Amino acid sequence: MSFRIEHDTMGEVKVPADKYWGAQTERSRNNFKIGPEASMPKEIIHAFGYLKKAAALANTELGVLSAEKASMIAQACDEITSGMLDDQFPLVIWQTGSGTQSNMNANEVIAYRAHVLNGGQLSDEVKVLHPNDDVNKSQSSNDTYPTAMHIAAYKLTVENTIPGLEKLRNTLHKKAQEFNHIVKTGRTHFMDATPLTVGQEFSGYVQQIDNSIRAIKNALEMVSELALGGTAVGTGLNTPNGYDVLVAKKIAELTGLPFVTAPNKFEALAAHDAMVELSAAFKRAAVSLMKIANDIRMLSSGPRCGIGELIIPDNEPGSSIMPGKVNPTQPEALTMVCAQVMGNDVAVTIGGATGHFELNVFKPLIAANVLQSARLIGDACVSFNDKCAEGILANEPEIKKHLQNSLMLVTALNPHVGYENAAKIAKKAHKENTTLKEAAVSLGLLTEAQFDEWVRPEDMVGSLK
Amino acid sequence: MSFRIEHDTMGEVKVPADKYWGAQTERSRNNFKIGPEASMPKEIIHAFGYLKKAAALANTELGVLSAEKASMIAQACDEITSGMLDDQFPLVIWQTGSGTQSNMNANEVIAYRAHVLNGGQLSDEVKVLHPNDDVNKSQSSNDTYPTAMHIAAYKLTVENTIPGLEKLRNTLHKKAQEFNHIVKTGRTHFMDATPLTVGQEFSGYVQQIDNSIRAIKNALEMVSELALGGTAVGTGLNTPNGYDVLVAKKIAELTGLPFVTAPNKFEALAAHDAMVELSAAFKRAAVSLMKIANDIRMLSSGPRCGIGELIIPDNEPGSSIMPGKVNPTQPEALTMVCAQVMGNDVAVTIGGATGHFELNVFKPLIAANVLQSARLIGDACVSFNDKCAEGILANEPEIKKHLQNSLMLVTALNPHVGYENAAKIAKKAHKENTTLKEAAVSLGLLTEAQFDEWVRPEDMVGSLK
Amino acid sequence: MSFRIEHDTMGEVKVPADKYWGAQTERSRNNFKIGPEASMPKEIIHAFGYLKKAAALANTELGVLSAEKASMIAQACDEITSGMLDDQFPLVIWQTGSGTQSNMNANEVIAYRAHVLNGGQLSDEVKVLHPNDDVNKSQSSNDTYPTAMHIAAYKLTVENTIPGLEKLRNTLHKKAQEFNHIVKTGRTHFMDATPLTVGQEFSGYVQQIDNSIRAIKNALEMVSELALGGTAVGTGLNTPNGYDVLVAKKIAELTGLPFVTAPNKFEALAAHDAMVELSAAFKRAAVSLMKIANDIRMLSSGPRCGIGELIIPDNEPGSSIMPGKVNPTQPEALTMVCAQVMGNDVAVTIGGATGHFELNVFKPLIAANVLQSARLIGDACVSFNDKCAEGILANEPEIKKHLQNSLMLVTALNPHVGYENAAKIAKKAHKENTTLKEAAVSLGLLTEAQFDEWVRPEDMVGSLK
Amino acid sequence: MSFRIEHDTMGEVKVPADKYWGAQTERSRNNFKIGPEASMPKEIIHAFGYLKKAAALANTELGVLSAEKASMIAQACDEITSGMLDDQFPLVIWQTGSGTQSNMNANEVIAYRAHVLNGGQLSDEVKVLHPNDDVNKSQSSNDTYPTAMHIAAYKLTVENTIPGLEKLRNTLHKKAQEFNHIVKTGRTHFMDATPLTVGQEFSGYVQQIDNSIRAIKNALEMVSELALGGTAVGTGLNTPNGYDVLVAKKIAELTGLPFVTAPNKFEALAAHDAMVELSAAFKRAAVSLMKIANDIRMLSSGPRCGIGELIIPDNEPGSSIMPGKVNPTQPEALTMVCAQVMGNDVAVTIGGATGHFELNVFKPLIAANVLQSARLIGDACVSFNDKCAEGILANEPEIKKHLQNSLMLVTALNPHVGYENAAKIAKKAHKENTTLKEAAVSLGLLTEAQFDEWVRPEDMVGSLK
Repeated sequence: MSFRIEHDTMGEVKVPADKYWGAQTERSRNNFKIGPEASMPKEIIHAFGYLKKAAALANTELGVLSAEKASMIAQACDEITSGMLDDQFPLVIWQTGSGTQSNMNANEVIAYRAHVLNGGQLSDEVKVLHPNDDVNKSQSSNDTYPTAMHIAAYKLTVENTIPGLEKLRNTLHKKAQEFNHIVKTGRTHFMDATPLTVGQEFSGYVQQIDNSIRAIKNALEMVSELALGGTAVGTGLNTPNGYDVLVAKKIAELTGLPFVTAPNKFEALAAHDAMVELSAAFKRAAVSLMKIANDIRMLSSGPRCGIGELIIPDNEPGSSIMPGKVNPTQPEALTMVCAQVMGNDVAVTIGGATGHFELNVFKPLIAANVLQSARLIGDACVSFNDKCAEGILANEPEIKKHLQNSLMLVTALNPHVGYENAAKIAKKAHKENTTLKEAAVSLGLLTEAQFDEWVRPEDMVGSLK
Repeated sequence: MSFRIEHDTMGEVKVPADKYWGAQTERSRNNFKIGPEASMPKEIIHAFGYLKKAAALANTELGVLSAEKASMIAQACDEITSGMLDDQFPLVIWQTGSGTQSNMNANEVIAYRAHVLNGGQLSDEVKVLHPNDDVNKSQSSNDTYPTAMHIAAYKLTVENTIPGLEKLRNTLHKKAQEFNHIVKTGRTHFMDATPLTVGQEFSGYVQQIDNSIRAIKNALEMVSELALGGTAVGTGLNTPNGYDVLVAKKIAELTGLPFVTAPNKFEALAAHDAMVELSAAFKRAAVSLMKIANDIRMLSSGPRCGIGELIIPDNEPGSSIMPGKVNPTQPEALTMVCAQVMGNDVAVTIGGATGHFELNVFKPLIAANVLQSARLIGDACVSFNDKCAEGILANEPEIKKHLQNSLMLVTALNPHVGYENAAKIAKKAHKENTTLKEAAVSLGLLTEAQFDEWVRPEDMVGSLK
Repeated sequence: MSFRIEHDTMGEVKVPADKYWGAQTERSRNNFKIGPEASMPKEIIHAFGYLKKAAALANTELGVLSAEKASMIAQACDEITSGMLDDQFPLVIWQTGSGTQSNMNANEVIAYRAHVLNGGQLSDEVKVLHPNDDVNKSQSSNDTYPTAMHIAAYKLTVENTIPGLEKLRNTLHKKAQEFNHIVKTGRTHFMDATPLTVGQEFSGYVQQIDNSIRAIKNALEMVSELALGGTAVGTGLNTPNGYDVLVAKKIAELTGLPFVTAPNKFEALAAHDAMVELSAAFKRAAVSLMKIANDIRMLSSGPRCGIGELIIPDNEPGSSIMPGKVNPTQPEALTMVCAQVMGNDVAVTIGGATGHFELNVFKPLIAANVLQSARLIGDACVSFNDKCAEGILANEPEIKKHLQNSLMLVTALNPHVGYENAAKIAKKAHKENTTLKEAAVSLGLLTEAQFDEWVRPEDMVGSLK
Repeated sequence: MSFRIEHDTMGEVKVPADKYWGAQTERSRNNFKIGPEASMPKEIIHAFGYLKKAAALANTELGVLSAEKASMIAQACDEITSGMLDDQFPLVIWQTGSGTQSNMNANEVIAYRAHVLNGGQLSDEVKVLHPNDDVNKSQSSNDTYPTAMHIAAYKLTVENTIPGLEKLRNTLHKKAQEFNHIVKTGRTHFMDATPLTVGQEFSGYVQQIDNSIRAIKNALEMVSELALGGTAVGTGLNTPNGYDVLVAKKIAELTGLPFVTAPNKFEALAAHDAMVELSAAFKRAAVSLMKIANDIRMLSSGPRCGIGELIIPDNEPGSSIMPGKVNPTQPEALTMVCAQVMGNDVAVTIGGATGHFELNVFKPLIAANVLQSARLIGDACVSFNDKCAEGILANEPEIKKHLQNSLMLVTALNPHVGYENAAKIAKKAHKENTTLKEAAVSLGLLTEAQFDEWVRPEDMVGSLK
């Protein structure tokens, strides 16, 4: 392996000869051998592409950077955003808590890639751009990294998380309509209860996802606020007048997303409550999805010794030892994702709560967990949707058998015979293993005809839509 | 101790002769000896007062309950809401997960108290009202308990949590203005950084609380939706037409709060995502408050061997062995509250995620944790405000000493000498324990006059408000 | 209400005339109006009785306190330990994070109660004992409060938590033996699987609880180490030689529990890892109990539309609207307790991780959560045991019906016809809704006689005990 | 891209022509596009190499598999264990919760790689080994995957986690001895307190890590128990007599680790309490490390406006905008790791608590989180050790300055003048900004000579080692 020499304010460093990164990236690589290499999320790297370009454009517009330099920076940034330079970002999450080294990784790669794009060689001692003085102009890690977090989180949420949730929501809504006529026994406390329709049951799932999406959108509001312009401690030191507003506008233009400058930069550097809030909204969605996936797994249990009211698609052999077994593997993947999102939320909570003074230094941790949750929810919803939800069928014979057996149809008699007499009927039928009608008539509380008139499951599901 | 005999559908039960509760409450008392008696939150009990009255009024208006019975129910409910009958609610949180037994506790106390108020005796076998057929008419535990949860949580949040947060917010805002002229050294990574004003630092805290309040209000939106009218499984079985909308309106009138009927009762019984979301909003506030309290505790550390830039009130002797010691006890209480709220959120998350089919059966757990968080945040903010925040003083001599010493003032030189030269100055001053000016001049990078012109802390805090 | 004047180093304080507490307790009451009064766990208060008595005896034995004073202290301490003076401890958890004020509450109550017991009046300006100089001699809040935490936690764990777990474990073990002959269909992924016996299923629960008890006992090892003797920062300043070892011995004698002095007092004050570890052991037990309670709730689901293989006792009417409904209320209470214990563990984790320098100041939070978990697990196990586990019956007809229907008996054919052919049989039977035997024979893979010989559920459960 | 056709019991599947995996792996790849490809931890893959080889050897020894087939299996397994075939395992964590598909991935790769090693071609329809009938003989995913989890977790813990902790522990112990003579001011509540030595402070850290290692070793005890031999539901169906004990012995031999067969296979499949317990032990270590890292970061704060009592190594430029800034980056990385481990523990807790009946189906989630925690703690300890702890220096001038200023030296006067008089001295000195001696003498409570005799910091640190 061959090396070249780069330097920073601490001195010289040997860097792999063919890599665009420089001294500070290389120091970080050597200083933080924790977990697998390059664990810094790609979404963060790409976000740096947007923000460094935006900063260069704003700097030029405000007269502190030459148009030529801005153009060189922009060209390298476009490559970063496109993913072309992903392998030039070898750093891990577990570095400095400000993400400084990933900011410098971006500064170095942009400066040196621009140098090469403009005919230079990596081994040249002086490059066309200086990582700090040019690429990082009007910036600090302390405002760039949180800006990258917000760009990455917002983008992934609207491109992956919400569409995934919506896709699943729409399928469940379609199923709710498709199953609207099928009356089934309800279950409360995991025990037989009064009837409802399968469609009504699914409408609850739809409502849960609708509410989750609403909560995520509420949380995005604050994620749209960018720290950029605060520089080191929130005061905006070394930035030209009007820079913060302008650079946010540039980022909004480049990404097509409604970013604005944060109203208070001190908060935006020292706390990551916006990310904490977004993580909690993901966790809330995970709570909803856990319920839905559990219901579907349990309602499709069997095929012969379970509840068996739903039939879900067979996607793969379920067992390496039990031939012919099919399992609810998509609900399982989804519930595992939900558990992960709940755990991630605790990590984000602790990171968010442990900032001090002018800077929270759990930034990469927070970013990585929020982005993983965003990714997993979106992906798992699509997988669950495509490979499970779309194929759900109602097992009508089984549903009908359960409904007819249910003792809780007795509830329809409350207004006619009172709660206590109705209880006597249900208990008698249960004890003697008879039908409710037999028990009711034999207790002399009503006639067979009255029973048939009053106890009609299809009439018991109707007063609410 | 003397007893009377009450009965329910399971048979006879001995109940303390002088208590208003009946058979089912007494069964629960005996069946769930878990933790301290009467742990069901009082806010839930009082909420039952509102909802049972509202249900009676709605039932009468819709023609299914006599006005006389409604009036008797209302009278007993008013006593419950006032707190007069608190000692008639002996049950614990750790009962059935639907809260059925607390619903029955309310039904029994209302029926039997009404009986006594109307001249009857507790020992009479027949009472003027039947707990199920009259008091619980058009209701099920499955829709009353979640309704009580929402009423209690909404009410406590707007009466205690938000006012507490606002009180503290306003004090911090006042301090931010008061301290606006005081330039201090910033700290990032717990290390000296570029300057800002004490007021700017406090403005970040204000923003954090403002955002927390916004998040809580967002979450309240869904808490305003009431399950009542869904009865057993969400279908509204055994309720008169229009009942769900009407009863929510009645509750809104009685409480003065903007309650409405839930758009989907299946969701409202089977999931408590609204409470999960509210808990997460409280947790988000706890994250903010943890940061603020930690900053204040650390900034006031000393008095002689710490950072010592703030002075907080001395409220009590701090040590039983170290005479004259004063400690940041209010920040400590507040941070303990924050940790509790974070733990509560996990309990609520697990409870919320573990519902099955038509009913979530972690209701009392969820209610108790959300209400404790609501109470603790509100109370702790007021305590912290009154006994600490209001009395915070800036220790200006100490602040000035730190500011003048800080090597990070060198950052102001970046635009003049470049990042690398500025680094040389700072490192030289640090190594030789001199001032920045001495180092700068001795390196020949600038003149004394230039230094004095370029490095002015008061000019370094200004480009953002 | 009448008052008397007490004073401390900060000056005079008005204290309720008839209360034994003094100035510092009263200050704390006024300074921390957070949550319900007197929330400091009683177990902590009683533990102070043991440790203050032990300290007095050790002080006398080492010559730094008169025997007469020690005797007066001991007498008041015995009253505290007995619970007689519980109403003299009005303070809340949410006070200073060192618990100083509860330590002073104990010091004051002991000093003043001793004064009265020795003929004095509460209004006397000078009392027979000084709270700090006599009662707190050789102590600091910083070592007494953690010592009280350990005494309280150890005692409650061995008196409540472990006996509760053991009681349930023994019942489940008895059931495992009782049900050992009953072959049932297994379920994996909530789907039908190969058979096992009900007794084998229950033996897994027994193993889980055995392992949980083992984990709790492992954790208790460190809880047996006491901080007392470390005083303010762990150096033991102002304690006589040999005091730490002696005072731990005294506490061991008074409590009958194997307490020893902590090997490193700096760790014992600055960290509460022992409590964190105990909390995690409780959480591990909660994980086990959650699984067990869920299984029992689900296996007893029905009565007609669920799995219905177990029958659990009917303890109370299950529904206020559905007559005759019976619910798994004990499993519900237990699973709510488990969720709480998991939440508590997060609160304890955060508190434990947030200590600084020589003192962790989340002590009351940690104590309250650990003690609540200890109490809840013990109580809930006893409740679940007495009201549910002991009465569990196997529903043999239902179990038999499921077993005979299960397609997964086909697994027994793997060694005879291979996995792929066995899968064909199962799939054919499933698709055509026939028996496995019919499918197998019609595929020509084996004879009826071979099927009968090879597929015998009772032979499929046997190779492991 | 070219394909070949493989089949399983569900039919034909197109598989990349050059990959060793087969139909079931390919189905899973297509069915679970969640998160980044190949996220199943490599440690799990390698563990499958050990266990599949051990199973083959045991099968042969017990007469159910030919020696020739066992030898072919063993050869392919050795390649897996060596890491050579890592790129043949493309599956993700977010698959079926039993890990069946990763078990089948192993079965397929072993069967097909063996075929090629024995001269066959991947495109041959019949291979020398059948994935289920040969490679998976006497096994089920339900017992192999948990066995792989235990092998992987045990191995990583003893090879990475514990050595990392021990390395750091030893360095801190060395520092404790090195700094044993340096008396410093203690800090409780973040406020000045009585003195101790820097060595004593570090000895607390050592004790914390010692205790954490002990807790991890306690937890490993149960991780050494292997599920293998339980097959589908724990009964050991389709395994030869004595297989479970023998296969554990084989695994112990192959790994050199003390594995044994689990005493109860039902528990070992249906619950992963052993992993829950190990995760909690890691979390406990994270709590300890969070405290230690925070202390070191705060004690080294400055360089001019903080506490500044420790000096830690400068490893990289700390800021992209503030020249010459150096930050505590290793403590930051370590505390981020700690927060992650705490979050992971919640994910593991939820996964562990949500098993049903005979199988827990959160296995890959649990495995991935436990293994990540194990890896991160080990790596981060080594990084923190090598790049920070080993280079820690005591800043003696600063320490001395603080010590001399501290008002809490007054505590030494308690036994001489009483707590209240001592408090007067401290308060007077604080108020008048004088030395304690001046205040004491001017109050007439003692002479200068007495002060000098009684207040000697070096005598205040001594009664405990």
